Amino acid sequence: MVPDGLRGGIDLGGTKIEAIVVDSSQTVLGQAREPTPADGGPEGVAAAMARAMTHAAEAAKVSTGRLHGVGVGSPGDVDGTAGTVAHARNLPDWEGTFELAASLREALGTDVHLGNDVQVATRAEFELGAGRPYQSLLMVSWGTGVGGGIILDGQVWLGRGGAGEIGHMVVRRNGAQCPCGRRGCMEAYAGRGAMEARARREVDRGARTDLFKLAKQRGRKRLTSSVWAHALHHEDRLATELIERAVHALGTGIASAVNLLDVEAVIIGGGLGVRFGEPMVKRIAAEMQPHLFNDGRPPEIRLAGLGDLGGALGAALLARSAAVGA
Amino acid sequence: MVPDGLRGGIDLGGTKIEAIVVDSSQTVLGQAREPTPADGGPEGVAAAMARAMTHAAEAAKVSTGRLHGVGVGSPGDVDGTAGTVAHARNLPDWEGTFELAASLREALGTDVHLGNDVQVATRAEFELGAGRPYQSLLMVSWGTGVGGGIILDGQVWLGRGGAGEIGHMVVRRNGAQCPCGRRGCMEAYAGRGAMEARARREVDRGARTDLFKLAKQRGRKRLTSSVWAHALHHEDRLATELIERAVHALGTGIASAVNLLDVEAVIIGGGLGVRFGEPMVKRIAAEMQPHLFNDGRPPEIRLAGLGDLGGALGAALLARSAAVGA
Repeated sequence: MVPDGLRGGIDLGGTKIEAIVVDSSQTVLGQAREPTPADGGPEGVAAAMARAMTHAAEAAKVSTGRLHGVGVGSPGDVDGTAGTVAHARNLPDWEGTFELAASLREALGTDVHLGNDVQVATRAEFELGAGRPYQSLLMVSWGTGVGGGIILDGQVWLGRGGAGEIGHMVVRRNGAQCPCGRRGCMEAYAGRGAMEARARREVDRGARTDLFKLAKQRGRKRLTSSVWAHALHHEDRLATELIERAVHALGTGIASAVNLLDVEAVIIGGGLGVRFGEPMVKRIAAEMQPHLFNDGRPPEIRLAGLGDLGGALGAALLARSAAVGA
Repeated sequence: MVPDGLRGGIDLGGTKIEAIVVDSSQTVLGQAREPTPADGGPEGVAAAMARAMTHAAEAAKVSTGRLHGVGVGSPGDVDGTAGTVAHARNLPDWEGTFELAASLREALGTDVHLGNDVQVATRAEFELGAGRPYQSLLMVSWGTGVGGGIILDGQVWLGRGGAGEIGHMVVRRNGAQCPCGRRGCMEAYAGRGAMEARARREVDRGARTDLFKLAKQRGRKRLTSSVWAHALHHEDRLATELIERAVHALGTGIASAVNLLDVEAVIIGGGLGVRFGEPMVKRIAAEMQPHLFNDGRPPEIRLAGLGDLGGALGAALLARSAAVGA
């Protein structure tokens, strides 16, 4: 017998797709992971998402058609009402608009609800994770890029739909080139993508590092969070320097955001944030301190409580909200 | 006969005290101005405030005791409930806590309500000025310092009480010294106080400028907004350079705030903002553009609509709210 109210959640990331099945108390009953396809376009990605969800459902001993909806946290410009995703820069050939919800609905046989990946993870941390004690918080998703989510008075703040771009706050005018094309953004120093690009340039200039050797040993084309963590552990000089630079930028930019919003708490998540864990959260907090205007009353700085599953758990919440709203 | 519902508003600034009497539709019936005393401590300032309010009431043909309350917008740490102001750095010998509301109540014979100067001006622009068409906005008060106010969903956002410190968002890590003691804050480049300090240092190093001569001609010890405006008009080289530097910092910092909050509009006010007017607002908007993440959909950038009276009008709103709440 299938328990009532099972829902699915899919976190669509630049390198992996995480799918889960949860019950009404958000307990994970099944889980599966697929690498994000590097080609095949949006259709290929949607097929991999459907596969991951199907495997998660099998693990939970339920067919996807019996799920009370599936939520998806996606990068790019997400239109939840239209069920589309556009301009997902970190996904293959996803410049245009793709009807992701319709495609998944057909493959899975249940309703599909889309949300922005960082917003979805923010809500998960607020409702279920490290953000539970607070009514206002800033979520910083430190991964390939640096994303942000804002909770004020217990509600997600979206502005005109594009709020939370903390990674594109400027920490140094005319500073380093950012993957977004601008200069001096926090992400230009702290995003894993920008850090990898910088590491490659430094190697081209003759710098020595084990970063790319470590990636190769792990069969990775990219410098994943675990590659960075191992290089740091082995005191690789270039890795240490680049991480330090990233932490400086994060401390400065997050402190600026706190000076503006005076939230109760800052939650550090994302691939790098979760991988580096508590010691790095302490370093970020220390870097923030000299830039805080109300330095006698800093916000709480917490590590994301849901680990790698925050995105998928938040996605599953989307399906719950939709069911409640219906 | 005295019309019903007359209220007073006092804007306590670093250089001047502006007092008004308004009717229930916020029409100004009387107005008076006093220079902020450079000595005499909080008591001296309170006495000057009472004088200004008394003169404004005389102009409106009403005694202060007949006013339905007086609101005050004050710098420093304002405790509206306790009626106290502490740590007002730009006011004389005002490091400690002073019972401003009680002192004024005794002098004026009516209830006195305190609010933070920038928050009060923000609410005035939102309700009565350039912010009326919007439900979310960022107010930037460009004067001796650079203050900020935030309206989200039609409500002032105060965070834990200290939100809106846009002047202390970092635009350049390890950058210029800020009057707050930190480095690289927007105010370190754009605050009138920091600009004057920089101008003095440049003169000490041999730079030529008419800034201090212009101040002297006007009988000013300080480089007021009008001194800067005249120097700019006469193409004084140092003044032009320092204003350019300020506009760069404002464009960068305000764009960062917009990337985080995605508000509908930005209102530029404060002594310098109001004095420089529309052309400078356009320059700030142009400086913001390259840093905006959603550059295809910039917020509206507007000049404050209430001019120099925004602070006093907002202060008068405080008395109205108190009356409604009572």
